[in-house]
Amino acid sequence: MITDRIRAFLAGERPESPCLVLDREVVREKYLSYARALPNTKVYYAVKANPDPAVLQLLVELGSSFDAAAIAEIGAVIAAGGTPENISYGNTIKKECDIAHAFALGVRLFAVDAVEEVDKVVRAAPGAKVFCRILCDGDGAEWPLSRKCGCDVNMAIEVLEHAHCSGLVAFGVSFHVGSQQLNPEAWDPALHATAHIFRELGERGIDLKLVNLGGGFPARYLKNVPTAAIYGEAITRALQRHFGNRIPQTIIEPGRGLVGDAGVIKAEVVLVSRKSVEDPQRWVYLDLGKFGGLAETMNESIRYPICTARDGDETTPCVVAGPTCDSADVLYEKIPYNLPVSLAAGDEVMIEAAGAYTTTYSSAGFNGFPPLKSYIL
Amino acid sequence: MITDRIRAFLAGERPESPCLVLDREVVREKYLSYARALPNTKVYYAVKANPDPAVLQLLVELGSSFDAAAIAEIGAVIAAGGTPENISYGNTIKKECDIAHAFALGVRLFAVDAVEEVDKVVRAAPGAKVFCRILCDGDGAEWPLSRKCGCDVNMAIEVLEHAHCSGLVAFGVSFHVGSQQLNPEAWDPALHATAHIFRELGERGIDLKLVNLGGGFPARYLKNVPTAAIYGEAITRALQRHFGNRIPQTIIEPGRGLVGDAGVIKAEVVLVSRKSVEDPQRWVYLDLGKFGGLAETMNESIRYPICTARDGDETTPCVVAGPTCDSADVLYEKIPYNLPVSLAAGDEVMIEAAGAYTTTYSSAGFNGFPPLKSYIL
Repeated sequence: MITDRIRAFLAGERPESPCLVLDREVVREKYLSYARALPNTKVYYAVKANPDPAVLQLLVELGSSFDAAAIAEIGAVIAAGGTPENISYGNTIKKECDIAHAFALGVRLFAVDAVEEVDKVVRAAPGAKVFCRILCDGDGAEWPLSRKCGCDVNMAIEVLEHAHCSGLVAFGVSFHVGSQQLNPEAWDPALHATAHIFRELGERGIDLKLVNLGGGFPARYLKNVPTAAIYGEAITRALQRHFGNRIPQTIIEPGRGLVGDAGVIKAEVVLVSRKSVEDPQRWVYLDLGKFGGLAETMNESIRYPICTARDGDETTPCVVAGPTCDSADVLYEKIPYNLPVSLAAGDEVMIEAAGAYTTTYSSAGFNGFPPLKSYIL
Repeated sequence: MITDRIRAFLAGERPESPCLVLDREVVREKYLSYARALPNTKVYYAVKANPDPAVLQLLVELGSSFDAAAIAEIGAVIAAGGTPENISYGNTIKKECDIAHAFALGVRLFAVDAVEEVDKVVRAAPGAKVFCRILCDGDGAEWPLSRKCGCDVNMAIEVLEHAHCSGLVAFGVSFHVGSQQLNPEAWDPALHATAHIFRELGERGIDLKLVNLGGGFPARYLKNVPTAAIYGEAITRALQRHFGNRIPQTIIEPGRGLVGDAGVIKAEVVLVSRKSVEDPQRWVYLDLGKFGGLAETMNESIRYPICTARDGDETTPCVVAGPTCDSADVLYEKIPYNLPVSLAAGDEVMIEAAGAYTTTYSSAGFNGFPPLKSYIL
């Protein structure tokens, strides 16, 4: 979606390519749509999706809370006017000195998935609240979910009991159904497991309070995606199914779901060529690729809409690649991308739904290309 | 390899983790070993491997030439005292304005792999020398080689003839046998194809002068690798086999081969945990991962030596992962990594042979983690 404000900015300012242009009005709409879809659930924006100060300021104004992955993100939220009580340090992998630093800043809510991590929180943030992340299978998600963060249900019970016995507040359970999760029912099995943990710990005299429903809310790439309302209904049904009339506090952590659709990358075609005279397949090289902001094309996971001024002309399937010398800097090849046959070097292209996981993912200077610039409207 | 100078620096300065420490004495030795191994071949350092000004200055002093991937790299070489005549703009994917900029700076040698790119050079760098890159299969290389850069032999002949007819100097042929190429004979089939192009164009009255033998020279990760001398002998034999007594000018473009072994990343264990009580496999989380400098662990391609102060203790296979919340930030899982059972959070680890493709590949700030710091000795 290229909003009128983005169009006007690009036409008026003609910023150098490549760059991201993000319209905060879209972020506002998305925030409000999730807040409405889950009225009893607090929104913790996943800062890692786009930590631009102007984005954070808007979300502070809207009353959002924040999920931070590292100390720098906590600092950025506070600098944008956010309060530490509204920040969750949601990374399960934290240096003890960073936990202490966050605690000193006023953060009181921490993610854990192991007794070893609990012990760090006990030492560095005495009395803090912790929630334990459990593993999810990630079925239905377009960005692959690994077993990296989270533990199994039995271990989560041990971890939370250990936290309770060590003087922390065993506060709840979190999970992540996988980024760009297109199945609104994906929360159901995770909530089934979560309710089991609540019951087990309840029997041990530990009353958990919080279910962190995580992220997974999608941006609209090439396919239509369910609305916030549909996610809200499915999640509410699943909460009722598994918790009956004792639904706990809930939070969601949308990142991509709030900022993805708000941004457009203006890019340029650098070269259109073929590998041999006989080969009909064109290679289209853009002025940014996997190392310049489009890291989520890894394994061709995220398929961005690419618009050109030649749209409407005949198209053929192309390989799409970035501008570096790196052989891995190929965006779409296994499933080639249909682009106009008239496309030529120098043409401007618009990469839509690029507001999430682009500026921060871009390399510090690989091949001499600077990080992706961004303009926030 | 952790040199005495690196050890002394780490012991004396105790820099914050993670950071890269690179010993330029190793770069000097490597440069001289390749210069000796191929005495009639000019060394063009592949700047993208590590563009630190101190590395570039040393190589200027040693008389190296430079392979640049982008305008910023050309600027960095000139700022380090290099002369534009000793720079090859080796990226086959260049904006026309960047070609013009390089030409204005005095660069006269450009890579191409398509007539469309030749036409840009004709307009932006009239009279310049061009070499055409041909495709290689990359067998034997540890970093995957795609079809991204280069064209087939018949198209290369067309491209070079087109350059000649358009007023450029059709100067030669380049290829890349694949990064971290462990087979010194890999240059042979590419030189066979190159000699064919030289003959074909010779028959059309176009005398090519240059064979750009590319990079591919290895760093020493976990396996032993052939010496520079062995590569030199194999390449010399292949040149003689295919060019007889009319061996053309040759250049090599080592990047990893010069700086890889010179650098060590000091890192720290952030967490050692398991996913369930029954699961014997430990997960070891470091304070940098795929987005903090170790991008070459993509698909577990490059397997870095990891040394700890616990080496000698019993080891078991672990999953090794980075510190971000990203599920893709896992370094070694398909083939787990043996690490000491005594390893614990807070332990320092040394990631060896990390001088190439680390600082520049690191993200601009993903998850709030800053780019990898480096110290050049």
